[in-house]
Amino acid sequence: MTVRVGVLGATGAVGQRLIQLVDPHPQFELVAVTASDESAGKSYREAAKWRVESPIPDDVAEMTVGRTDPADVPDDVDLLFSSLPSSVGEAVEPAFVEEGYVVSSNSSNARTDDDVPLVIPEVNADHLGLIEVQRDRRGWDGALLKNPNCSTITMVPPLAAVDEAAGLDRVTVATLQAVSGAGYSGVTSMEIIDNAIPHIGGEELKMESESRKLLGEFDGAEVHWHDADVAASCNRIPTLDGHLENVWVDTVEDLSPDAAAEAMASYSSLDLPSSPEPLVHVFKEPDRPQPRLDRMLGEGMAVAAGGLRETTEGLQFNCLAHNTLRGAAGASLLNAELLAEEEYV
Amino acid sequence: MTVRVGVLGATGAVGQRLIQLVDPHPQFELVAVTASDESAGKSYREAAKWRVESPIPDDVAEMTVGRTDPADVPDDVDLLFSSLPSSVGEAVEPAFVEEGYVVSSNSSNARTDDDVPLVIPEVNADHLGLIEVQRDRRGWDGALLKNPNCSTITMVPPLAAVDEAAGLDRVTVATLQAVSGAGYSGVTSMEIIDNAIPHIGGEELKMESESRKLLGEFDGAEVHWHDADVAASCNRIPTLDGHLENVWVDTVEDLSPDAAAEAMASYSSLDLPSSPEPLVHVFKEPDRPQPRLDRMLGEGMAVAAGGLRETTEGLQFNCLAHNTLRGAAGASLLNAELLAEEEYV
Amino acid sequence: MTVRVGVLGATGAVGQRLIQLVDPHPQFELVAVTASDESAGKSYREAAKWRVESPIPDDVAEMTVGRTDPADVPDDVDLLFSSLPSSVGEAVEPAFVEEGYVVSSNSSNARTDDDVPLVIPEVNADHLGLIEVQRDRRGWDGALLKNPNCSTITMVPPLAAVDEAAGLDRVTVATLQAVSGAGYSGVTSMEIIDNAIPHIGGEELKMESESRKLLGEFDGAEVHWHDADVAASCNRIPTLDGHLENVWVDTVEDLSPDAAAEAMASYSSLDLPSSPEPLVHVFKEPDRPQPRLDRMLGEGMAVAAGGLRETTEGLQFNCLAHNTLRGAAGASLLNAELLAEEEYV
Amino acid sequence: MTVRVGVLGATGAVGQRLIQLVDPHPQFELVAVTASDESAGKSYREAAKWRVESPIPDDVAEMTVGRTDPADVPDDVDLLFSSLPSSVGEAVEPAFVEEGYVVSSNSSNARTDDDVPLVIPEVNADHLGLIEVQRDRRGWDGALLKNPNCSTITMVPPLAAVDEAAGLDRVTVATLQAVSGAGYSGVTSMEIIDNAIPHIGGEELKMESESRKLLGEFDGAEVHWHDADVAASCNRIPTLDGHLENVWVDTVEDLSPDAAAEAMASYSSLDLPSSPEPLVHVFKEPDRPQPRLDRMLGEGMAVAAGGLRETTEGLQFNCLAHNTLRGAAGASLLNAELLAEEEYV
Repeated sequence: MTVRVGVLGATGAVGQRLIQLVDPHPQFELVAVTASDESAGKSYREAAKWRVESPIPDDVAEMTVGRTDPADVPDDVDLLFSSLPSSVGEAVEPAFVEEGYVVSSNSSNARTDDDVPLVIPEVNADHLGLIEVQRDRRGWDGALLKNPNCSTITMVPPLAAVDEAAGLDRVTVATLQAVSGAGYSGVTSMEIIDNAIPHIGGEELKMESESRKLLGEFDGAEVHWHDADVAASCNRIPTLDGHLENVWVDTVEDLSPDAAAEAMASYSSLDLPSSPEPLVHVFKEPDRPQPRLDRMLGEGMAVAAGGLRETTEGLQFNCLAHNTLRGAAGASLLNAELLAEEEYV
Repeated sequence: MTVRVGVLGATGAVGQRLIQLVDPHPQFELVAVTASDESAGKSYREAAKWRVESPIPDDVAEMTVGRTDPADVPDDVDLLFSSLPSSVGEAVEPAFVEEGYVVSSNSSNARTDDDVPLVIPEVNADHLGLIEVQRDRRGWDGALLKNPNCSTITMVPPLAAVDEAAGLDRVTVATLQAVSGAGYSGVTSMEIIDNAIPHIGGEELKMESESRKLLGEFDGAEVHWHDADVAASCNRIPTLDGHLENVWVDTVEDLSPDAAAEAMASYSSLDLPSSPEPLVHVFKEPDRPQPRLDRMLGEGMAVAAGGLRETTEGLQFNCLAHNTLRGAAGASLLNAELLAEEEYV
Repeated sequence: MTVRVGVLGATGAVGQRLIQLVDPHPQFELVAVTASDESAGKSYREAAKWRVESPIPDDVAEMTVGRTDPADVPDDVDLLFSSLPSSVGEAVEPAFVEEGYVVSSNSSNARTDDDVPLVIPEVNADHLGLIEVQRDRRGWDGALLKNPNCSTITMVPPLAAVDEAAGLDRVTVATLQAVSGAGYSGVTSMEIIDNAIPHIGGEELKMESESRKLLGEFDGAEVHWHDADVAASCNRIPTLDGHLENVWVDTVEDLSPDAAAEAMASYSSLDLPSSPEPLVHVFKEPDRPQPRLDRMLGEGMAVAAGGLRETTEGLQFNCLAHNTLRGAAGASLLNAELLAEEEYV
Repeated sequence: MTVRVGVLGATGAVGQRLIQLVDPHPQFELVAVTASDESAGKSYREAAKWRVESPIPDDVAEMTVGRTDPADVPDDVDLLFSSLPSSVGEAVEPAFVEEGYVVSSNSSNARTDDDVPLVIPEVNADHLGLIEVQRDRRGWDGALLKNPNCSTITMVPPLAAVDEAAGLDRVTVATLQAVSGAGYSGVTSMEIIDNAIPHIGGEELKMESESRKLLGEFDGAEVHWHDADVAASCNRIPTLDGHLENVWVDTVEDLSPDAAAEAMASYSSLDLPSSPEPLVHVFKEPDRPQPRLDRMLGEGMAVAAGGLRETTEGLQFNCLAHNTLRGAAGASLLNAELLAEEEYV
């Protein structure tokens, strides 16, 4: 069965990736694209400055861009992807859901709201149940589902495996993030060539809160956030794609590096069209994963881990994921596949 | 009074930096350069593939390179700098000291030996007293003094300030290290363009042990290593010079970010020719220090710190130093200046 | 019909690419790999430090590496690929051909020898006839076929199209070459980050001579080199793959940019398994081709051209090709496919 | 005698460089800074996002930014530097000159106007005489003087030396330009990491026309442009500062590479405060100049040349200059020093 979908904010960097992924998708048919008022009325080809390596799909190129407004989106669209700036998302996403649309959103607004599920399908698919709470509380027919920030998505699958095996007590993480995470024009070349920037505004807090919500327990009424301490330090470095992270973990029970590797390698995978198999690829080589070599594992949807070792401060490991695929557009897509499987659309 | 000096391993990357620093030095006069047997007998210009931005000093260019052997170094040399590969240093440094030479060494061998002082002058100048122990034990007339690894030097001054103010309990550090730290040919362009490497062989252990020795107490007979837990994760990134580090610190007593900043900014400085003033430059801007912008603070001899904030896991801050100046050649030079001030030469 | 092939110099950068391309090839079956004497006897997995993004093929990984000597290669091998250093190639390639092997070589030795065909299949397949001259003159049973240098391959297809349309009189070319062209360790990161190097030893001469031989005429007995003046200036820049070139052409007859674009876009293509269609992809956008965006056109086997305009000095255009695919391993592969088609194996 | 100066467009990239250069200048005293209307009224510290490595001068930091309007600039300012966007420069520069100000401008507007001198002091200081023509024709009391584009400045000094020695007939040039040439935000990191862009809008035409005007002859009434053919192709590459150029020259008379090197090395230099000595630094090493190693020659005000060789298409050489120092802010400064020496202020 084909699901008719639209993309809100279709001309941006994540929007373009979504179109690249949705166009050949076996289950989804793209029927609507929206953008800001200045772009509305133009062809998608004209409105989007296409940046993705593969060429712009011909049929999408000729679609007319609509305004990002429920009145401008056909009623028979079943599902909307949203990759809007968070300030815009905050304003318009509720309007769409109120009109009955199901929205799979990558925007950072509302991610930690009590009644908005924040989901990585392989990790906490059961949090989808929060949609019922959301509908009850807000009187909505549609649904609003969020995926987390790209840097959070990278570390949560291996952390979830460790949590399942030995319980998480304290997590310390330093990130080495690619420039594409800031959008096409987010980092100038003068800022980053021969340089690194040890701060990404708001990113540390997102990693600290979103990870605890994702690893929390849903009891049918609310999500009890995981009570581990999480502290993050975020750095931008001169890589194009792929966030690399150094993680230290204090666990409740002892966990050897080998047992942790085993837990990660065998951690849950799903049978959705875009699910990688395995979810977490574990390297034995101490100098892997590396962004350029490993970001395309599982067609950009896998997480890579490596460098597992015991330290005086617990388990240490490194992890990596493709920030605009697994970490953004692919995350929204996988959430949409989960919504379809669970018959929310 | 002029000190006559020589450089062992003068043609390598650190050796060249040493020559750049020693040549205009008010106190030192360069009279001997040595290298491997293949280079011996050539002019320095011919033997060294000069890589430093400033031109090769004319007088040094015409010096004849000697073999790295006590027999090939004039007796009236007062002090030797050593930037030999550690396997070579291990073999020949003791031979020179036995002959009565005072050696300021950047090589990694013997740094954690009981009777070898490992010194950052502003941090633990008193460890120089270990030279008496060394002479007693080994029957040497000369002296062997070491400076630490470049990534260790970067974090120890701010850590020492925090230790003095509130006591260190646990230190976690992730590094973003420049390619020059691996020597001129250590990292190929194919390895590092659009990439990062989450492992530098042996570097984690050096940071964990050397920092504890540097922060330890010398009681006149031995150095009692600091008992803080230190865990490091080392990454290579595409920067040319300047190691950036993210540090988390659990302190024994409470220490606010403001108090920590104050402790760092006012931390000990010395009156040696190459000492920067201040030693630690503290930035208020959360996105500083950055390698390209800040590595030349204090003519490459200062340490920069910034991003101080309180987390659920204690104090977090970032620090930076120029790895081949403050972290290698400049470190040996400063140690030599200390040796001269303390009349070991 | 399957052709049994071997790779001489299989552990190097081009050798690895060859194995990546030959392993899934419909026509070729890899049965022998050779390397230097130190590697002989090891498994290929052990001997090669595998650098290609796709994993090392399992069956190849377990092959035993032989010495690069006719005595160490099975007699029933039909065709050998050679990606040896030119000094080695000069010594051993004739020995293999003398023993009857047909060799498709990427090594730079012998490329401009009178009786050695230098071929880009789409451009001068007829030069293959030189093999008869070679056999007559040298008394060989086998055959030695060369592909040109990577920077030459990039410009020759569009130049051939222009030559066919209007006759070449004078060609001036400046290259912006990727670091992979120098092999895995050829360019250190210290040399090239935030830098460019305006000289590549020997490369200018290769472009000037090889292009004239490729564009020359074979009269059944010898190749009459094209008499156009060709002058090249070669630069190394911080890109990983893809050589970009700025070309100016004085033509014998007038040729408008539009007519030149048309000539390039419709230039000869072949029906070999690895031939791209079209051979030359012509961009209308003035800022294309770009290395990162366009190097994988035609699975890395196409040449891209763009920026065609008329200047006071004739036609100007830019061109680009993937230097280790179309420019090296893929070039040898295509030559081997031509040899098979023409029944030399 | 001190000259009181102001900077129009003081908050931009070139404006900041100008302030860095003017602040310690022995002859100039900075008394006014202007910017766009939004910045007017703020302190310079607040209005400028300071990007230069050396800290913002304290006295300048506290200056109040004025509007870029003659009414907002004190009458006793003797000389104005202009680094305005060309569309703004076109509108306001004449208004300032009409009010009697002498303007040394880096903006690209009006550079090829008949009565506007375009000057590199060491090359064509006599073109300053065009100011009289300008004053006559326009009824101005002030004066408008332009420096050329950064990529033009790089090649013109060595070309002028060759022209003087043997006469220029045809010039072909390919550039490898640094990202700072496009301003602080002109090139995003996503555009240029692992990439090159073979087109810079309008740059080719600037090089072709400005170089011919600079090398032209002023007969007291007008400048007769040089009649050499000049063709340029401009590329952006991942370097921070320093434009590298490959140049081919057909000369009227024969000129050996050695004679050309001698002509360049001994080419005119001036005794202005910011003049380098020599103007053109000629390298014997074939792989120099290189941007990172050589851009700071002569404190960023020299031009470097190298790689001189004879080709079938005449003389070939490479040249390099620091694009924001010798190529922009330093060029305007040198022109201002010339105006002071020639008593136009």
